[in-house]
Amino acid sequence: MQLEGRKAVLEALNHNKPIDRLLLRKEASGLQGTLKVIAAKARELGVVVQEVDRAKLDGMAQSGNHQGVIAVCPAKEYVEVEDIIAIAREKDEPPFIVVLDGITDPHNLGAILRTVEAGGAHGVIIPKRRAVGLTGAVAKTSAGAIEHVAVAKVTNIGRCIDELKAAGLWVICADGGEDGTSIYDADFSGPIVLVIGAEGEGVSRLVREKADFVVRIPMLGRISSLNASVAAGIMIYEAVRNRIQRRI
Amino acid sequence: MQLEGRKAVLEALNHNKPIDRLLLRKEASGLQGTLKVIAAKARELGVVVQEVDRAKLDGMAQSGNHQGVIAVCPAKEYVEVEDIIAIAREKDEPPFIVVLDGITDPHNLGAILRTVEAGGAHGVIIPKRRAVGLTGAVAKTSAGAIEHVAVAKVTNIGRCIDELKAAGLWVICADGGEDGTSIYDADFSGPIVLVIGAEGEGVSRLVREKADFVVRIPMLGRISSLNASVAAGIMIYEAVRNRIQRRI
Repeated sequence: MQLEGRKAVLEALNHNKPIDRLLLRKEASGLQGTLKVIAAKARELGVVVQEVDRAKLDGMAQSGNHQGVIAVCPAKEYVEVEDIIAIAREKDEPPFIVVLDGITDPHNLGAILRTVEAGGAHGVIIPKRRAVGLTGAVAKTSAGAIEHVAVAKVTNIGRCIDELKAAGLWVICADGGEDGTSIYDADFSGPIVLVIGAEGEGVSRLVREKADFVVRIPMLGRISSLNASVAAGIMIYEAVRNRIQRRI
Repeated sequence: MQLEGRKAVLEALNHNKPIDRLLLRKEASGLQGTLKVIAAKARELGVVVQEVDRAKLDGMAQSGNHQGVIAVCPAKEYVEVEDIIAIAREKDEPPFIVVLDGITDPHNLGAILRTVEAGGAHGVIIPKRRAVGLTGAVAKTSAGAIEHVAVAKVTNIGRCIDELKAAGLWVICADGGEDGTSIYDADFSGPIVLVIGAEGEGVSRLVREKADFVVRIPMLGRISSLNASVAAGIMIYEAVRNRIQRRI
């Protein structure tokens, strides 16, 4: 969903409505008037602001009258990381949280949300920048799962992981590389954060260095990578297997 | 890849080049002349023939001169089912074959080929009709895996499964339904055929009835299905886990 035009966007900001990204028309002389006020207000609220060419706005606009500003709103509201921990506590289960470090393809995010929901994980954490949010395309590919999964969006994945470690969760980082323990030799049954990297690039180095364990999916063929949502599915369900079998 | 025009298509048929589907211009009075000869020749070779509207051919044509016929050729040649068995024998491993019962989305087929290759399965069997073949889009999504995976295309999946059973393979059928054994209670370590169903529809009833075992992925949430390539990935890798751990 998106809001277009100065009045609609300013009103949404004033009422603190959830906004994924704010796109403003780039001006050679810098932002002026209401657009300047909108940008300041958005930054104050921690909303990502991007200045883009007029052609980009014209291409995105659905109303034909964007007045230099479009706000991209999430298909579902985000929660806080604490809310995800609370969901686990309510169910009396050790927390099982999936951190997605920079997934950019909406089809992958949608498929992963489906897997997270089916696997009974308590929630997902995604970064505010350089990643896809809860867009309409993600909602569609999630086949309804988006309604049942708590998703938090954070400014700094590294700091968020530090806080989860401090709260007693083990951080398990999935990495496509050669090193790392096979997922079949790892223990996913306690309170865990499973960190899954972006398509192609994997988990960022700073985040990987914070992990308690680095695991890898055994690759028995000649190619060395899986589709991002398939890799996430294999790991999430290895955690599900561990958790089911420990309970018995 | 596709061949366009009567001469090119007839030549390909005469040299028995691999063709996935032959599209011919529908005529109210029935096929005439060379198009009639082409259709007869194609059917004789077991190639799927479809009569379509002129507009469909015009839309697909890359040359601008299709002359009423386009042959869709696979991005890679198919093998025979026996070739897949031979690959397992050469490696001195119990056969591990994946049957895809009607996957229609090229992105799913491409992602599954990646997983099959990475998981060390010996090959894939797909049906000739009502399913996507080895198209260019599949090759692209497979990220190179298509070059290393043996894929056979058969007219009748049911008969093919009968033959594999007669050859001593166990047929394990994945089903989204409530019945069936949890994949975590099944044994995937012997000579197996893993049958995976289409998006939405699952495995066809006739095929499911031939299975030695019906298994299901535990679904712990409120929604009841996973993305097809994710579900295939979870099952293929559960077989990988079984096979790795038995070997130790």
